[in-house]
Amino acid sequence: MSGTSECAVEVTRGAVVESRHHVHAAVVDAGGRLRACGGDPDLVTFFRSSAKPLQALPLVDDGAVERYGLTLRELALCCGSHSGSAAHTAVAERILEKAGVTAAALVCGPHPPYDDDARRALQEAGLEPGRLHNNCSGKHAGMMVLARARGWEPEGYERPDHPVQRRILAEVARWTRLPVEAIGIATDGCGVPCFALPLRQMALSFAALAAAARAGERGPTMVFEAMTAHPGMVAGNGRVCTALMRQARGRLFAKVGAEGVYCVGVPGAELGIALKVEDGAARAVAPAILGVLRELDLISEDDYGALHSFAYAEVLDTRGGVVGQVRPAIRLQVAGA
Amino acid sequence: MSGTSECAVEVTRGAVVESRHHVHAAVVDAGGRLRACGGDPDLVTFFRSSAKPLQALPLVDDGAVERYGLTLRELALCCGSHSGSAAHTAVAERILEKAGVTAAALVCGPHPPYDDDARRALQEAGLEPGRLHNNCSGKHAGMMVLARARGWEPEGYERPDHPVQRRILAEVARWTRLPVEAIGIATDGCGVPCFALPLRQMALSFAALAAAARAGERGPTMVFEAMTAHPGMVAGNGRVCTALMRQARGRLFAKVGAEGVYCVGVPGAELGIALKVEDGAARAVAPAILGVLRELDLISEDDYGALHSFAYAEVLDTRGGVVGQVRPAIRLQVAGA
Repeated sequence: MSGTSECAVEVTRGAVVESRHHVHAAVVDAGGRLRACGGDPDLVTFFRSSAKPLQALPLVDDGAVERYGLTLRELALCCGSHSGSAAHTAVAERILEKAGVTAAALVCGPHPPYDDDARRALQEAGLEPGRLHNNCSGKHAGMMVLARARGWEPEGYERPDHPVQRRILAEVARWTRLPVEAIGIATDGCGVPCFALPLRQMALSFAALAAAARAGERGPTMVFEAMTAHPGMVAGNGRVCTALMRQARGRLFAKVGAEGVYCVGVPGAELGIALKVEDGAARAVAPAILGVLRELDLISEDDYGALHSFAYAEVLDTRGGVVGQVRPAIRLQVAGA
Repeated sequence: MSGTSECAVEVTRGAVVESRHHVHAAVVDAGGRLRACGGDPDLVTFFRSSAKPLQALPLVDDGAVERYGLTLRELALCCGSHSGSAAHTAVAERILEKAGVTAAALVCGPHPPYDDDARRALQEAGLEPGRLHNNCSGKHAGMMVLARARGWEPEGYERPDHPVQRRILAEVARWTRLPVEAIGIATDGCGVPCFALPLRQMALSFAALAAAARAGERGPTMVFEAMTAHPGMVAGNGRVCTALMRQARGRLFAKVGAEGVYCVGVPGAELGIALKVEDGAARAVAPAILGVLRELDLISEDDYGALHSFAYAEVLDTRGGVVGQVRPAIRLQVAGA
């Protein structure tokens, strides 16, 4: 590694940088080599929802997709943090139907949908959001299907010692090349276990998944195809995962996680990227990952231009005037540079 | 300065620190001496709403308080970032009445009130928030009164070259001991100018204001008495400025600013404190300032205990379970230590 590096997202107001987000990033190839980094690539933090593509793999490998006839669209929702639009909750419901359970079986708590139309519709109807609106309801529905397919009682599926969670942890360990004991466990926002590990290992898992998809391995290929064929199911309108995968047209898969995490896998280059906005700020995530992808030439200048409003978000005052900007300040250390 | 210092706020999930907020802090005495610090005490950022006590001083010094019969309660609202409760908007309206203008004259844009009851009441009545609900409406109403008292046309009072803003900038320059030209100007969230300057100078201004209040100087004494006698007008229920000033019972005055700024003045010690959460996160502000105040023994262990839920905020999952904590990690460098 060499060169002066900088890995941050700046928030300006007028001519002054008002706030600054530190970003840590690891870029790893499928062989586990660190190819580029910013900040501390060995920072330990939680994988959060960026782990969802790995969490969905057992659905394919354990025969649940086949047995319950899950479509790629439904599998994409299992890999997603959806916006709770009518289309998203309908797909979540369909998965639950196939598993023969209702939304009452889900442990994820309700939160207002990110989707503006869905939020307004609920408000106007005087309705409270339900469990299906939780951005993780696809993942939870997938856990139901997995339990059914394996003949496990779904009850208590959120507990770390439930066979569903033990199966998923083994999958996360496999792709991150870590012993199960080296992965820290805590409770995610939706009530199921989440995983603490170094960014470098998160990046490796996305590189390995990308390489396996490129090689045509069944589970990784289906997960990759589901996410890239149905990017709208992975997030929603106006969100970076959806916009980035639409723009990249099958060249990469991308998944945000809460508290400023983002992971990308690039099959063609057999590379994985994992980054963490140190303070967890959501506003810094899109500028950070787009800055990193452009810096590594993994998205073209044209793609970057098309995603400009994500990389350079406007700061508005309460009158709607533009008073500043959120912008990437990324210059990675590159191996051998 | 000596000693190993640390100045941060940590966010844990289970046993792991998931996210981390860097904090910069300056503790300065009324003579301008840096007495303690954390991070970079010379960091330049925006004063934002922490400048409001200074912005309100001309109301006293230029005779507006006397001429329009502003009460201490009303003056406190002019120094505040209020929660938009019914009590707050009523006081803002009363100030405007005294100035002979209506809310239509205010340039601050509407945003939903922070106060839960007020927000619910608007929703249930199917009403949109108005300009009076803007947390800065007291400051804006004060600017109207100042314009009236000085015989200036209020129209365009938000522009940096309007006499109201030039008068206020001179006041900020006076207390921060900076030439006017050294203060950066940009547009605040509410549409009027805000001020970029080093944290050290923000802290100095609060120390100088505290010392002047202690010495009985009229403007500083009135502003100090207004804020400490009516802490509910400076913020609102469940917010740290109000809770801290209630708990400290006249021993300090405190004012939050957007994007992670906080300033405190302590008349008894003739000290001023200014801090900035580098990334601007609101969740880190109360843990940071309470950690700093306790570290300097400017609030007692009992006061700190009473404010525990502000210093150590719970992280909840969507089911309402406690899954982590926001907590101060503050060890300042102290002069001569």
